[in-house]
Amino acid sequence: MYGAVIHAAGDVRYEERPDPEIVEPTDALVRTVATCVCGSDLWRYRGISKVDGATPIGHEFCGVVTAVGAAVTTVKPGDFVVGGFNPSDDTCALCRKGATANCEHGSHYDGAQAEQIRIPLADGTLVATPEYPSGDLIPSLLALSDVMCTGWHAAVSAGVRPGDSVAVVGDGAVGLCAVLAAAHLGATTVIAMSRHEARQRVATTFGATHIVTERDEAGIARVRELTDGIGADRVLECVGTEGARLQAVGSVRDGGSVGLVGVPHGDLPIDQLFWRNVGIKGGPADCRAYLPHLMELVWNRTIDPGLVFDLELPLSEVGEAYAAMDERRAIKSLLWP
Amino acid sequence: MYGAVIHAAGDVRYEERPDPEIVEPTDALVRTVATCVCGSDLWRYRGISKVDGATPIGHEFCGVVTAVGAAVTTVKPGDFVVGGFNPSDDTCALCRKGATANCEHGSHYDGAQAEQIRIPLADGTLVATPEYPSGDLIPSLLALSDVMCTGWHAAVSAGVRPGDSVAVVGDGAVGLCAVLAAAHLGATTVIAMSRHEARQRVATTFGATHIVTERDEAGIARVRELTDGIGADRVLECVGTEGARLQAVGSVRDGGSVGLVGVPHGDLPIDQLFWRNVGIKGGPADCRAYLPHLMELVWNRTIDPGLVFDLELPLSEVGEAYAAMDERRAIKSLLWP
Repeated sequence: MYGAVIHAAGDVRYEERPDPEIVEPTDALVRTVATCVCGSDLWRYRGISKVDGATPIGHEFCGVVTAVGAAVTTVKPGDFVVGGFNPSDDTCALCRKGATANCEHGSHYDGAQAEQIRIPLADGTLVATPEYPSGDLIPSLLALSDVMCTGWHAAVSAGVRPGDSVAVVGDGAVGLCAVLAAAHLGATTVIAMSRHEARQRVATTFGATHIVTERDEAGIARVRELTDGIGADRVLECVGTEGARLQAVGSVRDGGSVGLVGVPHGDLPIDQLFWRNVGIKGGPADCRAYLPHLMELVWNRTIDPGLVFDLELPLSEVGEAYAAMDERRAIKSLLWP
Repeated sequence: MYGAVIHAAGDVRYEERPDPEIVEPTDALVRTVATCVCGSDLWRYRGISKVDGATPIGHEFCGVVTAVGAAVTTVKPGDFVVGGFNPSDDTCALCRKGATANCEHGSHYDGAQAEQIRIPLADGTLVATPEYPSGDLIPSLLALSDVMCTGWHAAVSAGVRPGDSVAVVGDGAVGLCAVLAAAHLGATTVIAMSRHEARQRVATTFGATHIVTERDEAGIARVRELTDGIGADRVLECVGTEGARLQAVGSVRDGGSVGLVGVPHGDLPIDQLFWRNVGIKGGPADCRAYLPHLMELVWNRTIDPGLVFDLELPLSEVGEAYAAMDERRAIKSLLWP
């Protein structure tokens, strides 16, 4: 089979790789129907994270089960499935609490930008659709593999409630999905911080009530103007830089909460958080805990997170998929094997 | 009138002070019926915080209104009232969100260990009881002025829900009130971390299901044993030292939350919090937001936070009230003017 392999920063190739096989009795094999490039894949592409020799890459997919190990009971060959980027067994004490991202037997995979994938902990990780989806649903189902769950996690971690004012820092695919999540959870003021027209359009479609193009102190001042002068009840930080976190902490009101899904760098200003009663919570998304509900919302066409894909290419053009996102010509690239 | 004045570390005296007067039209004067010593008063008593010359001290009280300024409408002379330690106007945009600790016009007072007190922002700060309370209710009403609201705030900030497992770090009056709050909010496992028999007894009366006497790694291991091996859903940190915060972060499960009411020192381990999906939230308590509900619970004898007072003295013996708490002979000292 063929798939994407990263050889070095800036060098992702489409090449022949061995067909995956069942290794553990809890494995499943999936024929990929659609896959995509993640913002976090760009860390290696941009040389921010180290590339340790030629490595299969990608962790988002939807597809059709082709084989299952002897212990797998919840999915079967022929099922159309989505899996979160962080495999979980869905049975351990943490999974039972809904903390599936921190599953005690949690695993991971890389190499989903490929024709076929081996999925560990298949029972816990994969969720099947009621039937084979119509083609127009596939981008939104694919988005459930990471970005929609991650945006949702930002909103859930911040505790978004009906009537809240919410500001979203970051206009990548995750930030846009966080806008969608906040609006769906009942926020009545949803502020997208973005200076890119195409992304602003998606944010508005997803339910943003206001667009703020300013950054830093001016951005904070604008959010306060829109929120009775006090700042937003919840701020969803979907970037991961120190600047973004300062933007988030500055934009939240006293007594409010920041949902954090950008991987943090730098220190937390704990004194400021404490005296302002500002909470902070977040981390890798509990995909498996969210998948059934979010899949139902996609299936019923209540939400359409697939709109984050503004570039579709054949998998063989994976190099261009990375380049387009790296150069911000695309929000997110979908790949058809 | 007479009241307590701190002159230096270890030196709190009962002495004559000027009678307070209405200064602002939003002020009220209160004749103190009961007051008490706070753990945070000990910072100056122990020389941890600086004493800036002779200073009236104390911020917890209940009593009877004797006079009100021209703008005061919600309380009147003769009312029995409780006020939170952090005056708030209850009308600004933050107060309307329930973030009364961060009131935009917030104020403070010191000197409540006295026969009379001037209360700023009386309408926002004071809450009157339905009628003059019977004497046995007075300690519990007094506890609403700070420690019960603060323990409650720890539980609310951590998001305690029915069925949760909760561990409380700190067995001072606030920690004990946090046990009471967690139990009242429906936690089914309530772990009090304490090695003092008298405090353990109060914790058990307040609803603790388990007492953990171990500290540090052994304490964390014991909490995990009691919580399916994963740690408590919520941990309430009611001390404020770095050791206590590490105890709290170590005792909470992945995906859980720490409620923080001890004033923080040191840095937050943000990477560890993020990858474990551990949330942290807290600060000064939103007393005014909680007072009506908590007062009703005391009035109906549903909760009895006054049990934290294990020493009662005349106000004239305020020096001994401090010494007893400083030497841990008393959990909390109540003073009768």
